[in-house]
Amino acid sequence: MSVAIIGGTGDEGFGLSLRLARAGQDVVIGSRAEERGQAAAEKAVGILGSDLTGSMDGTSNEKAAASSEIVFVTVPFAGQAEIYRSIRESVRPDAIICDTTTPLATAVGRPAWQVLTPWEGSAAEQAKAILPKTVRLVSGFQTISGHALQDLDHDLEGDVLLCGADVEAKATVGELVGKIPNLRWVDAGPLSMARVVERLTAVLVSVNRAYGLREAGIRLTGREDWGRPASP
Amino acid sequence: MSVAIIGGTGDEGFGLSLRLARAGQDVVIGSRAEERGQAAAEKAVGILGSDLTGSMDGTSNEKAAASSEIVFVTVPFAGQAEIYRSIRESVRPDAIICDTTTPLATAVGRPAWQVLTPWEGSAAEQAKAILPKTVRLVSGFQTISGHALQDLDHDLEGDVLLCGADVEAKATVGELVGKIPNLRWVDAGPLSMARVVERLTAVLVSVNRAYGLREAGIRLTGREDWGRPASP
Repeated sequence: MSVAIIGGTGDEGFGLSLRLARAGQDVVIGSRAEERGQAAAEKAVGILGSDLTGSMDGTSNEKAAASSEIVFVTVPFAGQAEIYRSIRESVRPDAIICDTTTPLATAVGRPAWQVLTPWEGSAAEQAKAILPKTVRLVSGFQTISGHALQDLDHDLEGDVLLCGADVEAKATVGELVGKIPNLRWVDAGPLSMARVVERLTAVLVSVNRAYGLREAGIRLTGREDWGRPASP
Repeated sequence: MSVAIIGGTGDEGFGLSLRLARAGQDVVIGSRAEERGQAAAEKAVGILGSDLTGSMDGTSNEKAAASSEIVFVTVPFAGQAEIYRSIRESVRPDAIICDTTTPLATAVGRPAWQVLTPWEGSAAEQAKAILPKTVRLVSGFQTISGHALQDLDHDLEGDVLLCGADVEAKATVGELVGKIPNLRWVDAGPLSMARVVERLTAVLVSVNRAYGLREAGIRLTGREDWGRPASP
């Protein structure tokens, strides 16, 4: 099973590519330009060295999306709709797509501790409105800092909150999360819950500013093991 | 310094009253009816027994609000505006008011994992619109379960995220948080950040449902000690 990272040249996407490839996952980095995707893959291979246990390739967003059963979309909100329109013909009909977008107000020249409200309620629901109906959409990773993802000398600390209608799709993305040391995933509910979860990025930006940090995150309390909930 | 808990007969308010009184804080429980406030205080005295190290009194919301420098308002969203209108003439001009409301959709007969959007953006900002301008408003405690607060045999686990314009007011509420064993507080930014933080209650309700829990919470990662940020 291969994983594509659309927008894999950005902090979040590149960091996720490094973490997944180090965990033995085959990764295809996508970028708007094929050569930029290839360059990012070469850079990742150089950073990982002998820690690279999966394969690592780079190409265009369209080819990356077509190549993989699981597609992460890690792009800024300003370009999110355009990117989804560019890959919607390429994605496999039964692909699992994990959207990591937060609708930060930076898209319209406002601070990163403020957010916009997309027409559909969340960036994830905006993605759903653009994608073919057969695609299985999951929202997640908004609370995991791109800086922390790239800082390979340190384990990650926070939890990944996954939202979506498809329980199996959440569990499949969750298995990838589980391959990354110390990272847990929590089923946060339906896709509409992304209306709240996405916005946690803005709270974490606010906390980072107040305390002079770069990678505040959140961790759920209430039990030690999360992952797939028992069936009701 | 005494603390009033408006709506102190509810789960969140009563739990908070127990925790603060056990930590040596003088507490006045307010309720719509004076005798219900008194009955709640008597019940709290009975539960705490020799663990009661502060004083514990009960009265009407209006008298409780007038009595204290710090006033927690712990009422359901459906009654929040009415309660604030009822105490606005009673609160001291320089009182610190900590609003704990989440605008859950239960106010209009919809599920507790959905929220409403108040006109001002958040329940905390709705409170601010009703209160005198001199009052120092803080928003917090939405991620601490009323059930966990009342379960005195167990330490609390999560963090209290405080939002508000007044840094000193946040630190004062934070000192109260710090009196409760194992509880930390984090400065989450301006009052408008309550637009996101309040809604975490809905995410936690969703997580509780999925995993069969009653007291999921959240804890910030990125540093061990939070509390008052260093001045910029």
